[in-house]
Amino acid sequence: MQLYAVIMAGGIGSRFWPRSREKSPKQLLKIFNDSTMIQDTVDRLKGLIDDDKIFIITNKLHREEILNQLPNLKAENIIAEPFGRNTAPCIGLAALLTKHQNNEALTVVLPADHIIQEKEIFQNTLLRAAEYANQSKGLVTIGIQPTRPETGYGYIQIEDEVNDNIFKVHTFAEKPNYSTALKFLESGDFFWNSGMFIWRSDVILEEIKKYIPDLYTELIELKSVLFTDKFDKKLLDVYGKIKGISIDYGVMEKSRKVFLTKGAFSWSDVGSWEEVYNLTEKDEDGNSLIGEVYTDMTNDSYIYSPDKFTAVIGLENVVVINTDDALLVCRRDQSQEVKKVIDYIKLKKQNKYL
Amino acid sequence: MQLYAVIMAGGIGSRFWPRSREKSPKQLLKIFNDSTMIQDTVDRLKGLIDDDKIFIITNKLHREEILNQLPNLKAENIIAEPFGRNTAPCIGLAALLTKHQNNEALTVVLPADHIIQEKEIFQNTLLRAAEYANQSKGLVTIGIQPTRPETGYGYIQIEDEVNDNIFKVHTFAEKPNYSTALKFLESGDFFWNSGMFIWRSDVILEEIKKYIPDLYTELIELKSVLFTDKFDKKLLDVYGKIKGISIDYGVMEKSRKVFLTKGAFSWSDVGSWEEVYNLTEKDEDGNSLIGEVYTDMTNDSYIYSPDKFTAVIGLENVVVINTDDALLVCRRDQSQEVKKVIDYIKLKKQNKYL
Repeated sequence: MQLYAVIMAGGIGSRFWPRSREKSPKQLLKIFNDSTMIQDTVDRLKGLIDDDKIFIITNKLHREEILNQLPNLKAENIIAEPFGRNTAPCIGLAALLTKHQNNEALTVVLPADHIIQEKEIFQNTLLRAAEYANQSKGLVTIGIQPTRPETGYGYIQIEDEVNDNIFKVHTFAEKPNYSTALKFLESGDFFWNSGMFIWRSDVILEEIKKYIPDLYTELIELKSVLFTDKFDKKLLDVYGKIKGISIDYGVMEKSRKVFLTKGAFSWSDVGSWEEVYNLTEKDEDGNSLIGEVYTDMTNDSYIYSPDKFTAVIGLENVVVINTDDALLVCRRDQSQEVKKVIDYIKLKKQNKYL
Repeated sequence: MQLYAVIMAGGIGSRFWPRSREKSPKQLLKIFNDSTMIQDTVDRLKGLIDDDKIFIITNKLHREEILNQLPNLKAENIIAEPFGRNTAPCIGLAALLTKHQNNEALTVVLPADHIIQEKEIFQNTLLRAAEYANQSKGLVTIGIQPTRPETGYGYIQIEDEVNDNIFKVHTFAEKPNYSTALKFLESGDFFWNSGMFIWRSDVILEEIKKYIPDLYTELIELKSVLFTDKFDKKLLDVYGKIKGISIDYGVMEKSRKVFLTKGAFSWSDVGSWEEVYNLTEKDEDGNSLIGEVYTDMTNDSYIYSPDKFTAVIGLENVVVINTDDALLVCRRDQSQEVKKVIDYIKLKKQNKYL
């Protein structure tokens, strides 16, 4: 059994503005420590998957920076999509690439910008899931036990346990409203959809062929040019013709061989500054202060200002993000509204702030 | 009757940090419009007092900038104190200078950093006060009718009206607590101490001689070197020997010839960002926005960020001051606490932020 990893790093995350920008999306930022989120994602695989079996699918804007951040990976394994087409094309492409290397490749698909705390449990989960995916020729997804009625995640409902910590999937559910999320939480059989998958590359390709045949037809055109200098041109051609579609909608919600394994590690997709605050160490005032920051009568706040002296007086539950050329001051529980700033910037054609 | 003006511009205002800095105190800043507060102060005298009869007493750090900002004034009328010694020495020095120009000079003493809205009423008030000061040889101070129980100002209690809008002064009161301020407001005979005075230069000198004889003895040493190249050295010598003392404490509270005239114009000493907010035009959300500022669910706030794109989300009653090298985010009604930031900066020896 030969394990490969495919890290999906195509995000142009607008929720971390003004730190995340078109040129520096979330996965390329140092948010929690001195390494970037994609570096942490690769590091988390150490001991389980060799560096030369790690692929990264990214946007052409970011390939150069990823090469810089991850010098130990093989440059030819860092693949740049000409533009984003959602997850299904990305995953299909990744399956072609890994299958080309090893006809029986087992692939772990991981987003580049999640935070996972217990590496050992995480690796064990992947390994067990891979064994089951190999043996069953099924599609295994990792579900996270909900700890709160979160409305920001999709959910997956399980039914019977068919093997040790492997469950048949009953249904996929979109992001719920609060009362539905509460029901999901209370039911005990709904899990957060982490967007992490484990499968044989040949199996996911077959399922794409079955459920998104148009996509398969185009992708298979790439087979003869993989790892050649004709690849980029052909990829541009293929991406120009295919439709954007998510792997959940395109395959997972339809396939009859979908399983869920519970990930018993701390996990977050870190979807907002609020979530960054929650995941960051706080001082006795409940503040997380980055940079030279003076506070007075200020509590439960996240203040990021690495280059400018900053004073915050008399505020609670705020996020302050002070970068070279832009400033965000936001109520913490409104931090998901940051995406509207991006809309405004686009409207005003102030692209330098994107 | 020959009117002179002396503008006291020695302040190193820390309450407007991070805009006001050691090198750019409040009076040298453009806070309300495209002219600085000291330019507005001079402009407010136009038609009443000739430019060549306006003196400015400032700190040596700021003389150059004042010369730049006020090119129409006579350079020899811009006097730099080697360091601040409170108002009495400054006023005594100003009296010597104006009396040297005209033995019967009538002097209007004005702070450089107040805001006054109705120029005509203001000039009329000065003129009437000057006439009375000339005829009575008294010390006339301008009192402002309180409109709220303000605890940030000193008060002056009046008694009999001795002439049209000229009242005998009963007593001076320090900044009161709230309940006292409320009593003052209700009494009707307490007025805000604006720090603006009108008197004959020879009269205030006589009163300084009577009530602060040590100061007079030193100041009079300067008489022979006024407007000569020996002045600066001698001034340094004199200022090294005298004690800092306010004109209120040193003379006004003791003299028996103190009068008050009511100033029926809008006045503020603009003592905090809160006050700047109050005095600034607001949009329909109650916000005053300077620079490229996006707001969402944000009300009643003052956002100054001329050089950086700024987004404020979900906040009310805040002040954001974003300068080249420092940032303040403050609850509006806590903006007087900004002075504690200065203490912190001094403690940390981060003098570049002073």
